[in-house]
Amino acid sequence: MTRLFVAPGWSTLVLAIGIAGCAPAAAPPAAPAPGAAPTARAVLEPSPAALRTAERVQLTGTELGTMWTFENPPLDYWRERYDFTASPEWLEHVRLASVRYGQICSASFVSSTGLVMTNHHCARQCVEAVSTATEDYLVRGFYAASRGEEKLCPELYLDQLVEIEDVTARVQAAVPAGASATAATTAIDAEAERIEGECSASTGLQCQVVSLFHGGQYRLYRYRRYAPVKLVFAPELQAGFFGGDPDNFTYPRYTLDVAFVRAYQADGSTAASTPQYFSWSPAGAREGDLVFITGNPGSTSRQITVAQALYEKEYRHPFTIDFLRAQRDFLFWLASFSPEAERQVRDQLFSVENSLKAYSGQNAGLQDSLLMGQKIRWEREFQQRVDADPQLRAEYGDVWDRMEEIETEKLRIAPRVNINNPDFIGEPEVTLAAELIRYIQAVSRPEAERPERYRGEQLAAVEQLLRSQTPANPEVSARLLAIRLDLARRWLPADDPFLRLAFQPNETPEVAAERLISTTQVGNPAYRATLMQAGDAALRSAADPLLRLVRQMLETYSRLEPRREELNAEEAVQNERLARALFAVYGTELPPDATFTLRISDGVVAGYPYNGTVAPPKTTFYGLFGRAADFDDRMPWTLPESFDRRRGALDLSEPLNFVSTNDITGGNSGSPLIDREARVVGIAFDGNIEQLPNEFLFRTETGGRTVAVHSVGIMEALRNIYRATALVNELMQGGGPR
Amino acid sequence: MTRLFVAPGWSTLVLAIGIAGCAPAAAPPAAPAPGAAPTARAVLEPSPAALRTAERVQLTGTELGTMWTFENPPLDYWRERYDFTASPEWLEHVRLASVRYGQICSASFVSSTGLVMTNHHCARQCVEAVSTATEDYLVRGFYAASRGEEKLCPELYLDQLVEIEDVTARVQAAVPAGASATAATTAIDAEAERIEGECSASTGLQCQVVSLFHGGQYRLYRYRRYAPVKLVFAPELQAGFFGGDPDNFTYPRYTLDVAFVRAYQADGSTAASTPQYFSWSPAGAREGDLVFITGNPGSTSRQITVAQALYEKEYRHPFTIDFLRAQRDFLFWLASFSPEAERQVRDQLFSVENSLKAYSGQNAGLQDSLLMGQKIRWEREFQQRVDADPQLRAEYGDVWDRMEEIETEKLRIAPRVNINNPDFIGEPEVTLAAELIRYIQAVSRPEAERPERYRGEQLAAVEQLLRSQTPANPEVSARLLAIRLDLARRWLPADDPFLRLAFQPNETPEVAAERLISTTQVGNPAYRATLMQAGDAALRSAADPLLRLVRQMLETYSRLEPRREELNAEEAVQNERLARALFAVYGTELPPDATFTLRISDGVVAGYPYNGTVAPPKTTFYGLFGRAADFDDRMPWTLPESFDRRRGALDLSEPLNFVSTNDITGGNSGSPLIDREARVVGIAFDGNIEQLPNEFLFRTETGGRTVAVHSVGIMEALRNIYRATALVNELMQGGGPR
Repeated sequence: MTRLFVAPGWSTLVLAIGIAGCAPAAAPPAAPAPGAAPTARAVLEPSPAALRTAERVQLTGTELGTMWTFENPPLDYWRERYDFTASPEWLEHVRLASVRYGQICSASFVSSTGLVMTNHHCARQCVEAVSTATEDYLVRGFYAASRGEEKLCPELYLDQLVEIEDVTARVQAAVPAGASATAATTAIDAEAERIEGECSASTGLQCQVVSLFHGGQYRLYRYRRYAPVKLVFAPELQAGFFGGDPDNFTYPRYTLDVAFVRAYQADGSTAASTPQYFSWSPAGAREGDLVFITGNPGSTSRQITVAQALYEKEYRHPFTIDFLRAQRDFLFWLASFSPEAERQVRDQLFSVENSLKAYSGQNAGLQDSLLMGQKIRWEREFQQRVDADPQLRAEYGDVWDRMEEIETEKLRIAPRVNINNPDFIGEPEVTLAAELIRYIQAVSRPEAERPERYRGEQLAAVEQLLRSQTPANPEVSARLLAIRLDLARRWLPADDPFLRLAFQPNETPEVAAERLISTTQVGNPAYRATLMQAGDAALRSAADPLLRLVRQMLETYSRLEPRREELNAEEAVQNERLARALFAVYGTELPPDATFTLRISDGVVAGYPYNGTVAPPKTTFYGLFGRAADFDDRMPWTLPESFDRRRGALDLSEPLNFVSTNDITGGNSGSPLIDREARVVGIAFDGNIEQLPNEFLFRTETGGRTVAVHSVGIMEALRNIYRATALVNELMQGGGPR
Repeated sequence: MTRLFVAPGWSTLVLAIGIAGCAPAAAPPAAPAPGAAPTARAVLEPSPAALRTAERVQLTGTELGTMWTFENPPLDYWRERYDFTASPEWLEHVRLASVRYGQICSASFVSSTGLVMTNHHCARQCVEAVSTATEDYLVRGFYAASRGEEKLCPELYLDQLVEIEDVTARVQAAVPAGASATAATTAIDAEAERIEGECSASTGLQCQVVSLFHGGQYRLYRYRRYAPVKLVFAPELQAGFFGGDPDNFTYPRYTLDVAFVRAYQADGSTAASTPQYFSWSPAGAREGDLVFITGNPGSTSRQITVAQALYEKEYRHPFTIDFLRAQRDFLFWLASFSPEAERQVRDQLFSVENSLKAYSGQNAGLQDSLLMGQKIRWEREFQQRVDADPQLRAEYGDVWDRMEEIETEKLRIAPRVNINNPDFIGEPEVTLAAELIRYIQAVSRPEAERPERYRGEQLAAVEQLLRSQTPANPEVSARLLAIRLDLARRWLPADDPFLRLAFQPNETPEVAAERLISTTQVGNPAYRATLMQAGDAALRSAADPLLRLVRQMLETYSRLEPRREELNAEEAVQNERLARALFAVYGTELPPDATFTLRISDGVVAGYPYNGTVAPPKTTFYGLFGRAADFDDRMPWTLPESFDRRRGALDLSEPLNFVSTNDITGGNSGSPLIDREARVVGIAFDGNIEQLPNEFLFRTETGGRTVAVHSVGIMEALRNIYRATALVNELMQGGGPR
């Protein structure tokens, strides 16, 4: 997991897509293939291949994964499967030694004096913040040999989960009988906020109401917050991010993705006292060993119904992938102008590449009839158990049909909502045109009936904006608009009004976009001023083709967007019903979907079939030197300078990275891997490419693995490359001076 | 390519499948899915996805590959693409420096005194042959520091292609006008044999008539044969076959798959004089460099029509894969009895695993709608060019329809021919029953009307066999029969007579096979003797269930097998017509499908997208040490003892293996890779897993690559691991004493 594939944030770009992608909209979901378009309903029927697979597939019992909550650890399962008994003391110790790292990652205490281990890619923000014009610690790495040299990570805090309370009854009681879907959602949110407020006021802790199983259960989590936090050690970027973007989400891997920070007492001068910490395993884990991961997985979609999965498969994933590819091409184009332009878009480009890999990997799971067959089989068993109990049947029997109706409608309107949303792509002329149209339509009504934005002082601000010069590069605008037009051509039915207004006969999206941008007068303040004077009737007869298109877009969008919101609220209600049914049938047997809260996952160290052969359970330092040599030391596989310098001091056959069957996802970055004795054997930093489909169903037999740095490799590097003696001693002795 | 994936031999087991698999037979090709079985015709329609892809796909011009013949090298293409001009002298030199290694591999002269380079896996047979009870050269490697120490490779010879003559007109003229398909095939074979005989008699050379383009063109190839051949150098198996079966067909790779032999003059005491040899490139090839491969690719199927490809997809490949899986399970079961049993089946098991990988990799290509779309598009263009010319249209316009009719019928009868063939699996009781039935049916007719086997002395031998004790292990027999029954259940329609006779209600194949084997009396000589006396009528009323089943099998088989042979002859005729059309449209532009004769392929050194990241253009010695360490030195990744011992003397960053876009297949093993100056830069030993679908259509953009040992790595190993000074000197100086 790179720094950007962390929950719940993703990157800003991906957020933009996320919001757009989550939204529903319109029309046949596949490319408008020659011949009759399939109906949305037909598309939501599982394929014959998936149904045949469902007949044969055996369920494993861990379809929903192994991200267990600390309130319901699967003690019997662990005992039977691994002959491992987790005592209440063991569980409490493990919970308190684990922390959430800011809003993005996971971490753990590794000494009694506040030392915390996380990933280099999690600490990167801090490394950049403490760097100066003369000292770039990202490039050369950072090590504080004494407390005095440790440097403050601005705004960073660590949250330790100290208490859990079941507040399900109170939250559910807050929903008035007969409330609409939207009202129910609002009532739940309000009650959760009240509970959090009361809790913070009475305890001084950080309080969070967590909705488990998508609403079936509610818990109040109380956290002790540690701040300030200071940087102790980070290797140079070339070691911590060896292999860069290409090797991201892959294995075999050779990356020293680890860093250490320290929690301080509030005064910032004394290290925090952290008696609950993980001690270090000098031998680490070997193939076949049981290992646990504690951390904060961001989100998963394993409880979704087959109809919801088919919506993901038929629309949201392929649409998002189309959009990301277009973004990538656009950024490449921008980067081609100059080295400075390249530098400016580099981070965005990386973020898009990262999302593209993640979405494509998940999409491969949706396309896999084995995965889909297993999902169908699982749902069928669940449904049969509901149907077998008259009371459950009466209460929940219709939930799958209701969900299918919702998804069918979403599938029909989703592309239209997105493509007609004027703010979806960000073409300046489209945004301006939408602003202008909204203004004219608003002021044609009495002030009391207008949205707030079009009254009094706010109205004056809008008017000023519309009258001022707004510089835009027409080439950039045309490129951006072409993205929208290309998506429209792929995702809207041939007779959609958008297509009729956007395209002239035989135009490609590029040609149409250039024509629309070069002919519009929307960028001209005088033209806008004239229209603002002339009013709504004149607007409706204006000939400007882009303006006409945006008017049509706004008409469609304002009609469909409220329906999309209703459907989302209705889906939340069905999700909650589904969750209650799940709980009624399976009790606490199953782990809820991930919620960026503390979980514990079990697994074993194991290689897997890959590339026609076998991926080893671990890699060694030999491999890092080898991959650098394979590429003649080119970026991103350039040998880290410190590795090169200290080559002679290293035992190249020592393990560097390893893989296990534990269940993780974005947000788990920085999670410790611990053994039966709760000793650190490694730190998780990624999942392999085979693990991405686990978003929808957890499987280990298809090669999905957690990728971790090995505790032996960390120690080898700290000792023989970085000669970080004080840090090594603190890790081995479990503490240092405060 | 391991030693078994070499053309044209494959292994004996695979041969068995090959014959069976090539044969046509009966019924719906997919598993008898619930609901109506699709018709064969419907199955031979390309899928909508493939058709949609065909609309979009751009052809590359090298769909038929780059295995060029020396009589038609693509001089213009090379000049345009690589700015490389191949002079007639260059081509003659390269042709004469290349040799075919026995019946299995390729090789090249690398000194003027008969030194020949090939793969370790090609020379393995010789290494085993020269080993003794006390000296196992397979395990410890072999090196002859002087001529006197070189050891004779029994029966080995090397063939050098010295002359090529076009005999198309003579061969085609031998087919009488209006000949049936079978008669045409026979006439062509007879004429080719005559030409070869005349040639050998007049020149003393090895002569071979080669059918190019599946019969469109015929060439007489004259070879100078070199024998005897002696072993000069072979690394230990653990270096030459590092990574073993799992790493077979994969890359990144770390294998020193190279060996050297020497051609001698006929007397065996003086080295052959070979002035045409490849000199050694001390620097080897780098990323982006143009490299050529000369060698003898065994066979490819790129000229087959879409209908033929769909037959492969719908029946031959999946059926063969089902059968190979069953064989593998059976061999595992045998191996589980004792270490001795394991040793006995080890080679067979390896051969089956190897075939399974090859067939599965090829099948992935058949399942790939992009590949199939490209094939459809290619065929459509070809067909349009035929249709555009009235004369070509009249002559060849119907060939695709004719082929589709043939494939449709093959698809219908192929599974039935195979499953009803009594000799298909080799269950002793089934073989005996068939022998018994055939005997009784034969002797019920007058002697003159019987097949030859049932007359005079031969008849007595059959009778003796049928009367004698034939020991069989019933458990083994039942396991074998269960394989047949399982295939029958998967591949025959539910109402097939075979299924009605083989299964009782609700029986699994295992249960039915056990019942049939345990109840049959066919193994009892007395029972057989009784039936032999009683004759055909008694046989027909015999109640023995296995006997009744085999009687039905023979009835079906003898009815359908002749039709299968007719269809094959008819397919050969259509193949020949198709080839003539190809030649008429494209002339000599296109390379013919592989024929285990000398070809030259161009390509460049290049990595490729793999495993979510990038495979490097080369690997280094670091990687070999790394992969051994990754697996804790376990087999088949145990570090070769000599590498371990000489680790300190090695530069681990030197290249060991590398990949290029050249076009190779089984039979190319041992082919040299040469640069523009015809210097050795490496030796080919495998294709990666992505390259297997190239059987049906050549692509490089999907990551298919040739895997080779790097000339620098060979030199590094010879110098610093094996200290083979005399060999190193001969390679660098281009010769040694005779």
